Amino acid sequence: MNNRPLILVTNDDGITAPGIRALIEVMITIGDVIVVAPNSPQSGMGHAITLNDTLYCDTVNLDPKAVHKEYTCSGTPADCVKLATQQIAPRKPDICVSGINHGSNSSINVIYSGTMSAAVEAGIEGIPAIGFSLLDYSHDANFEPSKKYVDKITRQVLKNGLPKGIVLNVNIPKLPSKEIKGTKICRQAKAQWVEDFDKRINPMGREYYWLTGEFLNQDKGKDTDEWALSQGYVSIVPVQFDLTAHQFINELNTWE
Amino acid sequence: MNNRPLILVTNDDGITAPGIRALIEVMITIGDVIVVAPNSPQSGMGHAITLNDTLYCDTVNLDPKAVHKEYTCSGTPADCVKLATQQIAPRKPDICVSGINHGSNSSINVIYSGTMSAAVEAGIEGIPAIGFSLLDYSHDANFEPSKKYVDKITRQVLKNGLPKGIVLNVNIPKLPSKEIKGTKICRQAKAQWVEDFDKRINPMGREYYWLTGEFLNQDKGKDTDEWALSQGYVSIVPVQFDLTAHQFINELNTWE
Repeated sequence: MNNRPLILVTNDDGITAPGIRALIEVMITIGDVIVVAPNSPQSGMGHAITLNDTLYCDTVNLDPKAVHKEYTCSGTPADCVKLATQQIAPRKPDICVSGINHGSNSSINVIYSGTMSAAVEAGIEGIPAIGFSLLDYSHDANFEPSKKYVDKITRQVLKNGLPKGIVLNVNIPKLPSKEIKGTKICRQAKAQWVEDFDKRINPMGREYYWLTGEFLNQDKGKDTDEWALSQGYVSIVPVQFDLTAHQFINELNTWE
Repeated sequence: MNNRPLILVTNDDGITAPGIRALIEVMITIGDVIVVAPNSPQSGMGHAITLNDTLYCDTVNLDPKAVHKEYTCSGTPADCVKLATQQIAPRKPDICVSGINHGSNSSINVIYSGTMSAAVEAGIEGIPAIGFSLLDYSHDANFEPSKKYVDKITRQVLKNGLPKGIVLNVNIPKLPSKEIKGTKICRQAKAQWVEDFDKRINPMGREYYWLTGEFLNQDKGKDTDEWALSQGYVSIVPVQFDLTAHQFINELNTWE
C-alpha cells in the first residue's frame, strides 16, 4: 500500500528551467511526483488561460533514471494545472508546488506571476498549493540554499493542510545557506512598478517598445515580505483569491 | 479652461469589439476620452504582461467624426494601461474604464479576466478604475440596456473617488432595460469552473485539447454577485489587489 502523497509540480519558466529541476529533486524525496509544466517560458503570464487556441500535452523524459512522469504543455501555468488535474493525474494531487521561479514574486509581483497563478489555480480546485521563488533572475541561479526551505514548508503544508481559499507565496533571498536567517510569515508589501518604456525603431522603420521599469516600495512595514527578504529571511505570504474588498462594501452601500 | 475628466478606455476583446464601442459612446458624454486597447482579442489573459516580446502601438481612426484619439496595442490589457499612462496620455487619467466585456466576469472569473486586469493595473497606478461586463458572450450582444448603468456608476466614481487599492467589478445581466432591477453591492461568489477538456486528433495525427468547462456555484449567499445577477440586478463588487489572507497570518505563525 502506498501512503506517499501525490505531488503535482509545475512552474512558469518552462520544464527545462533549473528552478523546476531543483524543485523536482526535493519533491521526489517527499512523495510521488507528477510534473506538468509549460514547454516554453511563461513569465508574466498572470492568471492567463488558453481559450482561443489548442493545447498540446506531451510526455517527456528529461531524466532517464526518473521514476516519476513528466509532461509538457503548450499552454500557460494555469492551463498546466487544469490539464494535470483533469486529464493526467491518476487522482487528485495532495499538494501542488510551483517554481522554483527564477526571480522574485514578492509584493505586487504576485499579480503578474505565472508561478503563483499555477498555485492559485490549484487552490481554486481545492488542492493545497505553494509557489516558490528565488530572488535571482539568472538562468544559472544557485538553488541549493533554497532546497532546505522548500522541503520544510512543503512537509508542513502536507502535515497541517491549508484552509480552503488560501495558498502560500514563498520567496527566498539570494544568499548563501548560512546567511538565510529562517522564515517569516508576512503580508504583501504595498509596492508597484514604475514603468519606463524603451522606445526603439525596427529595421522597417516602425516604432516599438520594450516594457521596462523600476520596482518602487514605499511600504516600510516590518510585517511585509519585502522587509523580511531585505533582512535575509524567507518570506511566506498566505494568498487568497477572494478579491472582494469586504471592508469597503458598507461604504459603497451609502452611495446614491 | 477644461474641467472635463480625462477618461482612459480599454478592454480585452480588442478595439473593434462592439462592447468597447458602446463604452466609448457613453464616455464621450462624460469627459475627454483616450482609447488604448488591444489590436486582437485577449480574453482569458488574466493579469499577463509582455516581458519577452516587443510592443507595437498605433493610432487608429475607427470613427471619422470622433474628437478623441484611439490607439491599438499589440499587447495585453495590462500592457495597454501601462503604455497609456506612461507614453500616450497627456496627463494621469482621472478614471480608467474597461469593457464592456462580451461575457461575465463575476465570481472567480475576475481572476482570469483581461477586462478586470486592465482595471486592476490602473488601480495599482493610483487611478480609480471600473471593469464593466455584460452577461452575453455573443459578438452582436445588445449593449443598449447597459449604458444607463455604465454612465451612472462612472459618474459616481468620478464624484466620490475610490480608496487606494480598490477598483470596481461591474457585471450586467442580459436583460431588456425594463427588467433590470437596479444595482447591488456584492461580494465575489465562491464558485469555480469544473473543467472538461475536449480531446481531439489533429490532421497530422497528434492529440490536442480544447479547454471547456462548466461553471459551478455552490455559494448561495444573497450577498454575492451571482445571486444579484440571477435576480436581475447589476452587481458591483469592490476588488482589491492586496491578496494577503490577513486572517490566516496568526495561525501560520503557530506552525513550527
